[in-house]
Amino acid sequence: MPTDAKLLPLIQKYFEEDPVRTAHMLETLPEEEAVDVLKGFPNEMAVRLVRHCNAHFAAALLQRLDYPLFRRIVEDLDPQQAAAIFFEFPNHLRELLLLQLEDRKKKQIQEILTFPEDSAGRLMTTKFIALRSDFKVKDAIQKIRILAKQGAPASYAYVIDPESRLVGVMNMRDVILANENDTVESVMRKDVFAVEAFMDREKVAQELSSRHFFAMPVVDSEYRLLGVVHAEKLIGGMQEEATEDLQRMFGASGDERAFSPVRFSLRTRLPWLHVNLVTAFMAAGVISLFEDIISKVTVLAVFMPVVAGQGGNAGAQSLAVVLRGLVMREIPAQKAVKFVTKEMMIGVINGVVIGLVTGAVAWLWQGNPYLGLVIGLGMLVNLIFAGISGAAIPLMMKSIGQDPAQCSNIILTTVTDIVGFFAFLGFAVLFQNHLI
Amino acid sequence: MPTDAKLLPLIQKYFEEDPVRTAHMLETLPEEEAVDVLKGFPNEMAVRLVRHCNAHFAAALLQRLDYPLFRRIVEDLDPQQAAAIFFEFPNHLRELLLLQLEDRKKKQIQEILTFPEDSAGRLMTTKFIALRSDFKVKDAIQKIRILAKQGAPASYAYVIDPESRLVGVMNMRDVILANENDTVESVMRKDVFAVEAFMDREKVAQELSSRHFFAMPVVDSEYRLLGVVHAEKLIGGMQEEATEDLQRMFGASGDERAFSPVRFSLRTRLPWLHVNLVTAFMAAGVISLFEDIISKVTVLAVFMPVVAGQGGNAGAQSLAVVLRGLVMREIPAQKAVKFVTKEMMIGVINGVVIGLVTGAVAWLWQGNPYLGLVIGLGMLVNLIFAGISGAAIPLMMKSIGQDPAQCSNIILTTVTDIVGFFAFLGFAVLFQNHLI
Repeated sequence: MPTDAKLLPLIQKYFEEDPVRTAHMLETLPEEEAVDVLKGFPNEMAVRLVRHCNAHFAAALLQRLDYPLFRRIVEDLDPQQAAAIFFEFPNHLRELLLLQLEDRKKKQIQEILTFPEDSAGRLMTTKFIALRSDFKVKDAIQKIRILAKQGAPASYAYVIDPESRLVGVMNMRDVILANENDTVESVMRKDVFAVEAFMDREKVAQELSSRHFFAMPVVDSEYRLLGVVHAEKLIGGMQEEATEDLQRMFGASGDERAFSPVRFSLRTRLPWLHVNLVTAFMAAGVISLFEDIISKVTVLAVFMPVVAGQGGNAGAQSLAVVLRGLVMREIPAQKAVKFVTKEMMIGVINGVVIGLVTGAVAWLWQGNPYLGLVIGLGMLVNLIFAGISGAAIPLMMKSIGQDPAQCSNIILTTVTDIVGFFAFLGFAVLFQNHLI
Repeated sequence: MPTDAKLLPLIQKYFEEDPVRTAHMLETLPEEEAVDVLKGFPNEMAVRLVRHCNAHFAAALLQRLDYPLFRRIVEDLDPQQAAAIFFEFPNHLRELLLLQLEDRKKKQIQEILTFPEDSAGRLMTTKFIALRSDFKVKDAIQKIRILAKQGAPASYAYVIDPESRLVGVMNMRDVILANENDTVESVMRKDVFAVEAFMDREKVAQELSSRHFFAMPVVDSEYRLLGVVHAEKLIGGMQEEATEDLQRMFGASGDERAFSPVRFSLRTRLPWLHVNLVTAFMAAGVISLFEDIISKVTVLAVFMPVVAGQGGNAGAQSLAVVLRGLVMREIPAQKAVKFVTKEMMIGVINGVVIGLVTGAVAWLWQGNPYLGLVIGLGMLVNLIFAGISGAAIPLMMKSIGQDPAQCSNIILTTVTDIVGFFAFLGFAVLFQNHLI
């Protein structure tokens, strides 16, 4: 702790004023320096600091602490956040570090880690208020007082039967409005909506946002209450989900993070680059069919990237709109054909406009109107196909149960390259007497 | 209402069981049929149905209703949702339809519409519980009872001073735990965090999710309480925000929706296609410098799409990772150089691997080892630059205050095309004695 020793009191003061911003600031430091700051904090403050860091960074810090401090911090985190941090540890470290914890905490964390990543079970908090349906309201209030002091969140109180099955829900307002001697059963709402612990977070988010709830109970297959998932836990998740699609489009893994190890990036990106290579050679194969005309009219080679570039970008525009539309549930299966038709229309108009401009530029540049005609027609065909395939590829992938984003751009550029080169060079052969 | 007349009772029954799913189902019908269903519903049910539809679809339905039914439905929606629907109306219709409403509702909606799209002011609800700090807790409970009956959400009660300025917050649990005769001031939490009405929803979502709140008060510049924004309102918004980046990467507008009118799509996409055309011609210009060698070694033209395709896709992988990292706040300005260096490293390794494979394939296919060498070296240079520019372009755009996503892929492919062709054809010139 060289220079930081002096800065520490300042950082602590800043932390007291605004813990969130201080945590974000800390995330920008090299991990060794951040660990020094953490070690210099009093215990209670260190816990609060870790609570505000993202799980990835928190894991990097915690694995650099000595076991006693590590244990003290993790014991004070809620199990759900601790599990998120444990998930970020490398496999061999995870087991080792779990052994450092008290049995109860260890079990809680292990339980949460059995649910699949990005499931309701992983996101839920196990701190919640559960009441028996035969309680009187005054007993309920008594229990809420106790649980509240232990830090259960102030949202809903859930009502369970003797087998822990979820049978109702009360919000705190219902509790306030009720008569002291009513039973919980007579006051609770019975139409409680719950999600299964294995449900994917994307689905959970949809349910929460379309039902206008800010929290939902999580149950197992027997409808036993396991936990509660809160809307604010899903906000970051939903951004993540949507941005993962972006990475998958180009064949980077959805799990890659900005500072994932180089090895991880290579392992997921290189295979798709090889796939892309195969498809690029297919496009090369198309061109090799036309080597004869290219050797006679070299200028055709000059215009090839124009054809490929325009087709690829126009197709990617359609692709981006359809992927966004699928995430936002704007394109139900019944409207797929309507959507592809619309994109084809756009392709036709794009093709006419860009075809005319490209043709004119080519004519002026090279002084041959037939060259303009050839590239203009090639562009028209190319952009119509780009619109159709940009829209249709993800919809077809979805209809056969595949991830619509996965390497969709690689498939798309294959189509636009092959169709584009075929059209452009095909027209060149057709008009070759005027080109040579 | 031809066939639907018979189906209506069934749809109503289904709606009573699961209003959310029924609303989603309705969104898949052609608008004329959905309107028939809506008209056939009793008033109260129609309101609930509209409440569960997305604003875009709700607007399409509402503008097909006669004024009396339109008015009855809109009067029963909360102002915030009504404003979201009004925002979807075409400009000329919006004014006309506002005139159909009662003065009070009209004013509320107009007020909300003065806040910028995607701001806290647009997302907040104006139904909330506000208490004066000098109230006794028992009076507070009395007021909560009344407001609760009018449907104010059961989350927090906000405490204001006589000038309506926000001074504190109580959650319902605090109210339950307090002594009846305490003043609100002695019970409330004073460290209340509020957001400004003009704050962008992306920022609001960050604050909510990093502070672990499920609702936050919205204030004006004088700290007067205007409304409350709830986490579940932001979930859909955050997905939207992230997927808009995807569209902007390729020069489609962030505002384009799956079924935006063709005119709208063309207006935003065509200008960027022209930009792309200019950059494609720059790549064409590079190739034209090498026409001489291409005319002698036509097979170089065959390999050009392989160079362009690999560079474009590898660069887009880096681009996707950096855009995701920026959304998720994983790349603070201080780590930008570290990130670009990492992507360059990946580019070097990708370049060596893909360069060797491509070189070997080219050698085997065309029987000339020097052709393999030329394309292998070209690929190496190409992929290193692809990694650097994919990572650096959005970071540079952000540092000069521009949207890092905007047409980033168009800029990227310009760089990869130009560098790739220069390297590939340049090496070809260098080794031309062995190629001809």
